[in-house]
Amino acid sequence: MQIRTDLAMEASLHAASAGIRQKKCCFGKILKTEVTVETEEAARMLQKARGHYITFSMDHLYYADAAERIKLSHHLAHTLRMLLPKNGDILVAGLGNRRITADALGSKVLDHLLVTRHLQDKEGGMLYEGLRGVCALAPGVLGVTGMETAEVIRGIVQHVKPSAVIAIDALTARESGRICTTIQVTDTGIMPGSGVGNHRTGLNEKTLGVPVIAIGVPMVVYATVIARDALELMMKDVGISQQRLDGVMDELLGKTLHHPLGDMVVTPREVDAMVGKVARIIGDGINEAVQEALSPEELMELAHDCL
Amino acid sequence: MQIRTDLAMEASLHAASAGIRQKKCCFGKILKTEVTVETEEAARMLQKARGHYITFSMDHLYYADAAERIKLSHHLAHTLRMLLPKNGDILVAGLGNRRITADALGSKVLDHLLVTRHLQDKEGGMLYEGLRGVCALAPGVLGVTGMETAEVIRGIVQHVKPSAVIAIDALTARESGRICTTIQVTDTGIMPGSGVGNHRTGLNEKTLGVPVIAIGVPMVVYATVIARDALELMMKDVGISQQRLDGVMDELLGKTLHHPLGDMVVTPREVDAMVGKVARIIGDGINEAVQEALSPEELMELAHDCL
Amino acid sequence: MQIRTDLAMEASLHAASAGIRQKKCCFGKILKTEVTVETEEAARMLQKARGHYITFSMDHLYYADAAERIKLSHHLAHTLRMLLPKNGDILVAGLGNRRITADALGSKVLDHLLVTRHLQDKEGGMLYEGLRGVCALAPGVLGVTGMETAEVIRGIVQHVKPSAVIAIDALTARESGRICTTIQVTDTGIMPGSGVGNHRTGLNEKTLGVPVIAIGVPMVVYATVIARDALELMMKDVGISQQRLDGVMDELLGKTLHHPLGDMVVTPREVDAMVGKVARIIGDGINEAVQEALSPEELMELAHDCL
Amino acid sequence: MQIRTDLAMEASLHAASAGIRQKKCCFGKILKTEVTVETEEAARMLQKARGHYITFSMDHLYYADAAERIKLSHHLAHTLRMLLPKNGDILVAGLGNRRITADALGSKVLDHLLVTRHLQDKEGGMLYEGLRGVCALAPGVLGVTGMETAEVIRGIVQHVKPSAVIAIDALTARESGRICTTIQVTDTGIMPGSGVGNHRTGLNEKTLGVPVIAIGVPMVVYATVIARDALELMMKDVGISQQRLDGVMDELLGKTLHHPLGDMVVTPREVDAMVGKVARIIGDGINEAVQEALSPEELMELAHDCL
Repeated sequence: MQIRTDLAMEASLHAASAGIRQKKCCFGKILKTEVTVETEEAARMLQKARGHYITFSMDHLYYADAAERIKLSHHLAHTLRMLLPKNGDILVAGLGNRRITADALGSKVLDHLLVTRHLQDKEGGMLYEGLRGVCALAPGVLGVTGMETAEVIRGIVQHVKPSAVIAIDALTARESGRICTTIQVTDTGIMPGSGVGNHRTGLNEKTLGVPVIAIGVPMVVYATVIARDALELMMKDVGISQQRLDGVMDELLGKTLHHPLGDMVVTPREVDAMVGKVARIIGDGINEAVQEALSPEELMELAHDCL
Repeated sequence: MQIRTDLAMEASLHAASAGIRQKKCCFGKILKTEVTVETEEAARMLQKARGHYITFSMDHLYYADAAERIKLSHHLAHTLRMLLPKNGDILVAGLGNRRITADALGSKVLDHLLVTRHLQDKEGGMLYEGLRGVCALAPGVLGVTGMETAEVIRGIVQHVKPSAVIAIDALTARESGRICTTIQVTDTGIMPGSGVGNHRTGLNEKTLGVPVIAIGVPMVVYATVIARDALELMMKDVGISQQRLDGVMDELLGKTLHHPLGDMVVTPREVDAMVGKVARIIGDGINEAVQEALSPEELMELAHDCL
Repeated sequence: MQIRTDLAMEASLHAASAGIRQKKCCFGKILKTEVTVETEEAARMLQKARGHYITFSMDHLYYADAAERIKLSHHLAHTLRMLLPKNGDILVAGLGNRRITADALGSKVLDHLLVTRHLQDKEGGMLYEGLRGVCALAPGVLGVTGMETAEVIRGIVQHVKPSAVIAIDALTARESGRICTTIQVTDTGIMPGSGVGNHRTGLNEKTLGVPVIAIGVPMVVYATVIARDALELMMKDVGISQQRLDGVMDELLGKTLHHPLGDMVVTPREVDAMVGKVARIIGDGINEAVQEALSPEELMELAHDCL
Repeated sequence: MQIRTDLAMEASLHAASAGIRQKKCCFGKILKTEVTVETEEAARMLQKARGHYITFSMDHLYYADAAERIKLSHHLAHTLRMLLPKNGDILVAGLGNRRITADALGSKVLDHLLVTRHLQDKEGGMLYEGLRGVCALAPGVLGVTGMETAEVIRGIVQHVKPSAVIAIDALTARESGRICTTIQVTDTGIMPGSGVGNHRTGLNEKTLGVPVIAIGVPMVVYATVIARDALELMMKDVGISQQRLDGVMDELLGKTLHHPLGDMVVTPREVDAMVGKVARIIGDGINEAVQEALSPEELMELAHDCL
């Protein structure tokens, strides 16, 4: 399969190996999938680092009403609490390029974040009992800053000394249907810009020295993936075998590789609103996960008033 | 042909009919195609109104340098001058939805426009010798305003009494390769929102009472079109006949119609920058076409300082 | 009094005339002032048209929490219901220039508006029982469109035939303390752009043929007004008589008229957030006033999801 | 004088001390003022660090035409070249809060910057002969990130190892007439957020370990300063002595300190366009200063196409 995917749930689709565990459960319209990559061998096979990958999918996320979105935020918060250390400041890194709507998820999440680390007294205690320190940065992408995202974050981590980093980024989907319907949370970190072909130094516990929780949402897809999905749809119908289908796919991909279509990356026409909606869900989820001392109402008021 | 197209040059591709004239010429990297639909019969066949359709294509418009973009503006200006009446005010209508980047071309062109109609003395003469009156409006789309664009524009035309309307809108491409590489100018007017399936009352000489020059640029494409383009690419290579290919296409489209893919409309990931670049080319072209008394330098200074 | 004001409550401050009625009441932190200009003579004296002027003031509107803002929206809704006709479509006109933050209130209110007029069946009945038709437009200012706002709105009113127009605009304050703390509602219409010195044809029942309810919020102030307020503060303290003070003021204004200070119009540094906050209060108030069939929860969900 | 100023030229106005040198010259409409603070004693007196302060003033900067703006960029470039080291990468830090228009100058300059540091081959040489490495970051303000700007920049400097930092920020004016008419360049660094009362750790050679060139433009002014300027204007006219005037000023400031006016910070109504214009002048100036190998035309094309 030549098209790489950022989603472990896609990578592990046909995998039934010793080192991979999968668990699925439904909460109303929300499907939660947990993939655990337990061994180095499994990691190599899936091309995914060892660790946990928790995915929340919701077919019509974009059309979800307020109640459904709040529910999704709660689930996200619950999962983040499992993965985050109990104490210490959290640095939230909004990755991606704010000037490209389809890549602006990271920086837009920061708009909904309750930033608190500076609300400290002279002795370094928090001004409000129980408030946990959160700081945030949208460092921008290599082409805009001239610096690797990892360089920027590493420099800040060494000065700010958070107990963990949460990194948010837009991903590339390997199935058309995944776009803006799936939120992946993982404790294995993230490879900024990995989605569209430019591999950079990763953000993970090894490179940053503190746990890195990555939150990703597929926002773009290669045009060739759309072609493949349509083809698959059609061919399955005429009873073509999976093996035969894979052969046709490979051929298709080979052809289009050198055609304008080959590296065209697309996003839904409604991407502006989609990014806005998912950014709020993630922002609310992080706020709830980190600030256990505040009620949902207090959080809502504080976070959405800080704009 | 199930997939409709806003581009006459696409519609007329295989058409060699009595009532259709086509002319092509190249200016460096710019391909200019003129299609004239001369008879009602030809109009029915192409599903395009009688009139002129002039298209400028440039493979890598998005990567064009300043010299190439200025050249394209000049060509556009020359064509607009042919189609516009010699005297009287011009109303420029920037159609589309400014909140959806892929649909914001119309409103973004207005940012580059030299608006002059209000620079009049008490007797209604222009304050600057030779300046032609230009007014502009981005009325917004039905879903945002609750009013048909045609209603809004008609009301304004009756009060402002321009000698012509220039309407700018983002179009839907029928070939993936057309996205943001083609600018179509036509004297047949426009059907706002026609690109993505919602037909509304048209903007044309019949409905508005003055000539309507439409400028359109394909900015989005149906996911199924991408699938078809990829399929075509592959099948042509294995020597499949056109007839057979059309059959497969029809089947493909039938299948995907009821699948999520069926009505997914996509746009390139770089749409923010693309829209910005094309908007400037069109804005500069209109300014040059209308203000014959001003030199290119004066225009550049006046238009880009008004921001 | 050389500095004109858009606020009737300021104009009527020292007025105790036969044709002017004033009523004040407090609702917690909200001060509601109703000024009724009953005779033509009083109108001439105040330089305010005959009609009702209802003002809501709140000292720290910008720092108000969610509960206070919702309360203010309710009061606004209640007042609008008194002034609006019971039936028929409503056209909401967001006046001002969206590219100037301090003048963007009108267009920003539209972001929070529930637009419904197009949700009709073929016979012109509303798709949802009890929903009232609302349409909206941000026509832009003369300098950007080349057309008088009144021309644009009049043209649309004639086609769309609403039963009333609600026009929203940023105003000029005559007291520094009014900026973004006061919302004025009046049934006398509005003079677009009147705040900063450029008088245009008015929007009112006489020019548009339907009732015009204007909602205005002071967002800017002349630098000379700030100077005067500071001076007044200081002089009152040293026991200077009002008459003497007025003399000094006149002298001050005379001096600064020909100085750079003279026509400098300023706005608070925090204007971006202020406009956002007030826009939402007004948007929510209009929604509630117009859609009596919907509960506050339904309105919140519908209005804030349409973004 | 209780009102502090970020501009050395204002601070040194009445100073004729041993350790302060001043030089003025005019280039057409541009007034260039160089203040050199030579001794620690002079630094204490002026409350300005030892070093060079070069100021470019232009009465109607906002209304300057293209030729004047380009001229100003050239002057700025020339001054920056004097202050910058000849070799090594440059880090440009756009300070301030992008969500507050009056504070967005720093981040907006980055939009015009030619970022090049990443255009390197594997051995660390630049891909284009003669191109100098530039990287850039808009770190955001303490209230948004939860981190001191100095913390963020210091962390990055240690990883990226530039030979100098250029920091751009909006300043507070002490005279109404300075707003958006003056650009100050200094080799003494900057105190982020110093303009509006919140002192933070400074950005300077001592704290960052490399030279820090600061570029600042007054964009806001205290309302009390406007009051004082108007008062001064009036009183000078009636022949009041400077000593008496200072007394009145002190009294005025004392009064207003506890009044709403006291801490009101204002900005011109046209701040959106003003910031945009000055940001481009500064961006062009930096590009020209740093990239000596590129012609003005190449720079223009490269810098304004990168958007």
